[in-house]
Amino acid sequence: MISFASDYTTGAHPSVLEALEKINLRSTKGYGTDEDCARAEKTIQALCNAPDAQVHFLVGGTQANLTLIAAALRPHEAVICAETGHINVHETGAIEAIGHKVLGIPTNDGKITPETIEAMVARHPDEHMVKPALVYISNTTEVGTVYTAQEIEAISACCKKLGLFLYLDGARIGSAIQAGGAPLDVLARCCDAFTIGGTKNGALFGEAMVLIHPALQRDFRYIIKQNGGMLAKGWLLGAQFEALLKDGTYFSIAAHANAMAEKIAAAMLEKGYVFAYPPVSNQLFVIMSDAQAEKIAQNVIFQLGEARSKDQNAWRFVTSWSTRPEDVETLISLL
Amino acid sequence: MISFASDYTTGAHPSVLEALEKINLRSTKGYGTDEDCARAEKTIQALCNAPDAQVHFLVGGTQANLTLIAAALRPHEAVICAETGHINVHETGAIEAIGHKVLGIPTNDGKITPETIEAMVARHPDEHMVKPALVYISNTTEVGTVYTAQEIEAISACCKKLGLFLYLDGARIGSAIQAGGAPLDVLARCCDAFTIGGTKNGALFGEAMVLIHPALQRDFRYIIKQNGGMLAKGWLLGAQFEALLKDGTYFSIAAHANAMAEKIAAAMLEKGYVFAYPPVSNQLFVIMSDAQAEKIAQNVIFQLGEARSKDQNAWRFVTSWSTRPEDVETLISLL
Amino acid sequence: MISFASDYTTGAHPSVLEALEKINLRSTKGYGTDEDCARAEKTIQALCNAPDAQVHFLVGGTQANLTLIAAALRPHEAVICAETGHINVHETGAIEAIGHKVLGIPTNDGKITPETIEAMVARHPDEHMVKPALVYISNTTEVGTVYTAQEIEAISACCKKLGLFLYLDGARIGSAIQAGGAPLDVLARCCDAFTIGGTKNGALFGEAMVLIHPALQRDFRYIIKQNGGMLAKGWLLGAQFEALLKDGTYFSIAAHANAMAEKIAAAMLEKGYVFAYPPVSNQLFVIMSDAQAEKIAQNVIFQLGEARSKDQNAWRFVTSWSTRPEDVETLISLL
Amino acid sequence: MISFASDYTTGAHPSVLEALEKINLRSTKGYGTDEDCARAEKTIQALCNAPDAQVHFLVGGTQANLTLIAAALRPHEAVICAETGHINVHETGAIEAIGHKVLGIPTNDGKITPETIEAMVARHPDEHMVKPALVYISNTTEVGTVYTAQEIEAISACCKKLGLFLYLDGARIGSAIQAGGAPLDVLARCCDAFTIGGTKNGALFGEAMVLIHPALQRDFRYIIKQNGGMLAKGWLLGAQFEALLKDGTYFSIAAHANAMAEKIAAAMLEKGYVFAYPPVSNQLFVIMSDAQAEKIAQNVIFQLGEARSKDQNAWRFVTSWSTRPEDVETLISLL
Repeated sequence: MISFASDYTTGAHPSVLEALEKINLRSTKGYGTDEDCARAEKTIQALCNAPDAQVHFLVGGTQANLTLIAAALRPHEAVICAETGHINVHETGAIEAIGHKVLGIPTNDGKITPETIEAMVARHPDEHMVKPALVYISNTTEVGTVYTAQEIEAISACCKKLGLFLYLDGARIGSAIQAGGAPLDVLARCCDAFTIGGTKNGALFGEAMVLIHPALQRDFRYIIKQNGGMLAKGWLLGAQFEALLKDGTYFSIAAHANAMAEKIAAAMLEKGYVFAYPPVSNQLFVIMSDAQAEKIAQNVIFQLGEARSKDQNAWRFVTSWSTRPEDVETLISLL
Repeated sequence: MISFASDYTTGAHPSVLEALEKINLRSTKGYGTDEDCARAEKTIQALCNAPDAQVHFLVGGTQANLTLIAAALRPHEAVICAETGHINVHETGAIEAIGHKVLGIPTNDGKITPETIEAMVARHPDEHMVKPALVYISNTTEVGTVYTAQEIEAISACCKKLGLFLYLDGARIGSAIQAGGAPLDVLARCCDAFTIGGTKNGALFGEAMVLIHPALQRDFRYIIKQNGGMLAKGWLLGAQFEALLKDGTYFSIAAHANAMAEKIAAAMLEKGYVFAYPPVSNQLFVIMSDAQAEKIAQNVIFQLGEARSKDQNAWRFVTSWSTRPEDVETLISLL
Repeated sequence: MISFASDYTTGAHPSVLEALEKINLRSTKGYGTDEDCARAEKTIQALCNAPDAQVHFLVGGTQANLTLIAAALRPHEAVICAETGHINVHETGAIEAIGHKVLGIPTNDGKITPETIEAMVARHPDEHMVKPALVYISNTTEVGTVYTAQEIEAISACCKKLGLFLYLDGARIGSAIQAGGAPLDVLARCCDAFTIGGTKNGALFGEAMVLIHPALQRDFRYIIKQNGGMLAKGWLLGAQFEALLKDGTYFSIAAHANAMAEKIAAAMLEKGYVFAYPPVSNQLFVIMSDAQAEKIAQNVIFQLGEARSKDQNAWRFVTSWSTRPEDVETLISLL
Repeated sequence: MISFASDYTTGAHPSVLEALEKINLRSTKGYGTDEDCARAEKTIQALCNAPDAQVHFLVGGTQANLTLIAAALRPHEAVICAETGHINVHETGAIEAIGHKVLGIPTNDGKITPETIEAMVARHPDEHMVKPALVYISNTTEVGTVYTAQEIEAISACCKKLGLFLYLDGARIGSAIQAGGAPLDVLARCCDAFTIGGTKNGALFGEAMVLIHPALQRDFRYIIKQNGGMLAKGWLLGAQFEALLKDGTYFSIAAHANAMAEKIAAAMLEKGYVFAYPPVSNQLFVIMSDAQAEKIAQNVIFQLGEARSKDQNAWRFVTSWSTRPEDVETLISLL
């Protein structure tokens, strides 16, 4: 069986594992106060053109999201995001568990806009309702679409005008950037915080949290620790990000993932398949009848992307840094 | 200026105030462990035909809702309600503040059904999402509509089948029952918990929480206290409910409120007004242009019920036990 | 049976009830946005010599404490108080329920000092521990002792130096002030927030929260509402405080309570009783053997104040605005 | 510089890293639903003689503790532990952040007893206080002492009698067992849940949570996910535990750590050093003057274990699976 189930089904890019082996027996200070993390922070500051940014390394995405939001909001403040947003649907109420309402905006493409943000804020005028205070977006989005630099800039201007924090979940930021999405320096200029995802692009695990706004930087390590996110052997995170980022591996492997997806999408389009969302990054959401899906599933692992109806469900195919061209050919031959 | 702004703009029914005066200088045990509360509990058990029910008295509605839900749910469990549900919109995220996601179901009339509940549960199949565990309904609903006994019975059967608690917010249960809604004994048979609202029907303040399910009864006083809801002079609550319920005042004054609303609704219909929701209880939601609304507002206080668009906003007129017939006449003369 | 069980066993001072009756049928705006609350706020600002203070009215003490602390702290921040502090022992973990650790300082007299506060802060140096951020004191304390103006000033200076908020729970501030405790204008100058308690000194219920620090004032009504503390008929609170404060009733009835306690304490001292804490306010903690206590309990209601050992338990006798001189005489005759 | 700073300053035991390399490019199901985790669960069930136990793998200790406690308690319930307990002091209020009070019992040796547990429960008799519902102990304790099987059995009997859950934090359970502490099958018989720590004994990271009580097993994966503890590439955890446990490596390397500590302790005792706590496991707490400590610190990294006073501070030396005998010799030569 070949798998297009997700971009986190294999371990780490070989250069990452090699880096961990090299320092395995070294004695190092714990909790992310080590030199690997310091070096990776500097590398990220440089890539983002943001020398004053703080960079913290967390193990996973839900952890990163809840930690940032816990650090940012007072109890009565709420988060705005797309109805499909990961924090709204797929984090088991992690944001509510730390006390905050998530206000989901319905969208056609997983993307929110200055207009829909403004409308949501307008619907919350007084103290009998929560007070929107932070906008959450993800790039790529949960449905594989991509925010451009221009779009992020417009959202950022809107957030500044309305007094909202802007936070971008970059679990798949490598794929987004390689697909024409807003680059890191634009994020650093537009967002108050964002992550650079490792788990889905070459690392064993890890999300780098880049904090731009000074209010979010204050005491952030307390919030990490309180939420169980402070890795004892923190250097494992710094070393992985340094291995991926120092010479561009992070971006070249993301380009590979996108190229593999592009090939599949082209074949699907040629054969008349219809996409539920524009196929522009490493996640494809294609409409298939249940019968069609079952047939392919005899040889390929993939998942239901979005339940609609028997013959209109959207099935998700995901590529990654470790996707092999020969598996792509096999998949295409089965379409 | 006459007011149809809400049903909590005046103090208490005279019999309630009289009851409080009578016991004002009496020395009484605190925190609801007194005989007034015990007597009111017995009265409510009898009215509900539920001798094993526990009855607790709380000061306000948001407090009652958050206390019940805190007592009922484990951290990963969520509440299902209508998108217009009070807990979803008008309680400043109180339910999220105690850690639980609220899953709003869109409706046309503020009422959810077994079908929409089942569909919501079906959309939450695994541990990456919250687990629906309690259904919240209100009677009357936030838009003035009413659940009948039959409808509540159907929802109750659905909840039992799916393993969900059923909780009914009865802030306006007096009006609901007088408008053909499910009576108290049906609630006691169908719900795991429900409130009988005092604030909006004759009391200075107070909601009686009726706990049917033994799991909700356990340690409920701890949950009240922890959330700041335990009134030191608890007898103030028991005495008010006893004054209202012992001889049927509660229901006769609710009938008055409904009759006043019915008169207004009839006049409006006669003059061609259109209602946003069926005018069946003490809350009326009538469509008016902004110009129309402004004209009436020169002599009458009332509120925007639901923002739609300039000439299609729904304006809310509410009657209560203290609405005077002459004020109803004045309002009608201004339509 | 006569009762010295607590200072909240009777209803309201007659002037309070009279005020509520007078406005009972008036139509008023809800949720504390009315003119009674506005007037009482002005009265309190004047009494405190704090024209920029915000005053909010809450129903109860636990509610007031948790609302203030929720408004003040970020998630990793903690509260320092005496080990006997009400929030540490007698609020069912309300502060932990909103997410914050309470750091209790052992004391001999229920009072903390700049030295013990500094030592507690010194024990919390880094992000593996909570960060102390607010000092909670009560006046009178839970054991009936009193902070003087000088003591409060010293604590305030310490808090300012260490970057801590200072919050004073004034559930019994009337008794404290009449016993030589820091007056209201000193509190307004020294504290970031404090309450003026109504429940235990003449009101049916109610605590006035006086917010001095602008950071605490911001969005405070959201925090009240979210925690279920916004009374629908908010004017009931404003009217009660106005009735008590406008002409000094609040202070004269507190003086009465103290005088009654002083008389009891003098008789006890004369008969050789020993006090667990200095008898200076309306709460007396006297050491008695179980046999002695049982004998008095045949005619008087009072409570165990502090469990120590069979013959060394501290028993609590509390007086109030409604304590009758003849009941004091009866108690004395039974000693 | 040689380091005795802690037992988590080096990477993984070579066999662990080897196991991860071997499966690095394999495609595997995510979130701990893989065969490595299933195999490690079976191995642990067998070692514990607990075929019905559920085993879940978490990345870190604070995460494990807060997840278990979130799963176990209702909002008003509290945790009892030693005042020195990790959750009470060194987890930045993580337990309070999920809503629960931690009740610390003062001890001389980091160990609580049936007597001190009973006394704490007796001090919490009613709904104005939190309700103790879970006992947390750690083995080895935070000060390096060890609970024997007999002691754990006595605590377990006490917990059953009082209706309390018993949870054991086994971050250093390897060292504890090798030092005569209660073995795994006793833990499985006595505790409702416990962890087997990987981070401090051979793994890159990871704690195995063993759930015995069915009430804790229910929906545990939801609680993991909600708190950000579900590792996307969950097999990394299963594979590490399987590598350590399948052939006894876990215990032999713990014995090595203890032997290294024993050697240091013997040398210290010989030279007249005094220990703050009995030196029985891989953590030593030795009293030294600041001058002495500074001298050794020129060549050795170690930490302050417990602040007392200038010449009576307790300094902590920790050994691990990776401690080299030659470094122990060097340390001894510097004493």
